[in-house]
Amino acid sequence: METARTAAGRSTRDQILAATCDLMEAQGFHATGLAEIIKASGAPRGSLYYYFPDGKEGLAAEAIARTGEVVAERIRANLTADGGVGAAFAAFTAQIADAIERSGFRAGSPLTTVAMETATTSPRLNQACREAYSRLQAAFAERLAMAGYPAARATELAELLTAAVEGGIILCRTYHSGNPLRRIGAQIGAMISAMPPT
Amino acid sequence: METARTAAGRSTRDQILAATCDLMEAQGFHATGLAEIIKASGAPRGSLYYYFPDGKEGLAAEAIARTGEVVAERIRANLTADGGVGAAFAAFTAQIADAIERSGFRAGSPLTTVAMETATTSPRLNQACREAYSRLQAAFAERLAMAGYPAARATELAELLTAAVEGGIILCRTYHSGNPLRRIGAQIGAMISAMPPT
Repeated sequence: METARTAAGRSTRDQILAATCDLMEAQGFHATGLAEIIKASGAPRGSLYYYFPDGKEGLAAEAIARTGEVVAERIRANLTADGGVGAAFAAFTAQIADAIERSGFRAGSPLTTVAMETATTSPRLNQACREAYSRLQAAFAERLAMAGYPAARATELAELLTAAVEGGIILCRTYHSGNPLRRIGAQIGAMISAMPPT
Repeated sequence: METARTAAGRSTRDQILAATCDLMEAQGFHATGLAEIIKASGAPRGSLYYYFPDGKEGLAAEAIARTGEVVAERIRANLTADGGVGAAFAAFTAQIADAIERSGFRAGSPLTTVAMETATTSPRLNQACREAYSRLQAAFAERLAMAGYPAARATELAELLTAAVEGGIILCRTYHSGNPLRRIGAQIGAMISAMPPT
């Protein structure tokens, strides 16, 4: 049974994790300091060391894992096969483009910067990023398989969708416009619709 | 006429710029310090302030511009229409995948990390990244137009190619394998080959 104390603890822990996700999404791992995380989370300083005794790297690894789960869930929720998976992909990318615009181009690719910064400098964060990207690709592949793609083809196409979304988000943030991702999503969506699944 | 002194100066300046490009490609803008740049370039410390009086941001802006020119040139050199632009794109991405593997996954996307880090935090570097990405897209579009695509379609498809390559490189560096980009390049190459240009 959950006590009031564990519920409060989970909430403080969650606040710290959520702040870490937001800050790393906006500015990457290196530029995000523990003091900034504590300030943004509203949690007392001591709680950070209590819940994340490993410090910044451990906290970042958990934030990456959480991000992977959240984004994979979003993919599964949006890529339903009703109306065709191509159209669903185009609509999903348009929705991400809206979110990037709403964030003032600070958000939209929670893994990219950290993945690039730590690819060869932190085995622990690199492993966390691999697992997170694998979750995203598995979610796309699952939806493509449900739309009739054979497993191997679904896996291969899922990798392309993941890369195209990542790259499209980079262009959106760089150009301060959601349109690159909208156009990319529409093009890939049309290609998917034009290709038979098998 | 070029004097020995201006040639030596240009070479010192080039060394500093090349070291900045390499370090920012491997670890981003925030993690790259001026002391590290000087050390990697082999140039005397005073020369950095002499050639780049604006400091790190000015130096980074020039490094981004240079990267944009170099990559755009590489695109134009590789995306010849002989044998089809789809096959050329697949071969070009395979070549980038080889280079990423040779670098030990430190290199391969000289703009991405800096673009993401500075999208909303440095108007000057954001502008430099926009210009660099525009050069890349223009190079792809030019080659697609030469292969028979109408201008508007070439521009749109060039944006997709740019995003797919960027995203593919992120996956390569994350998974420490050139295969994601090879597979993505092959898939897009096949899609291009299957679609009529008009």
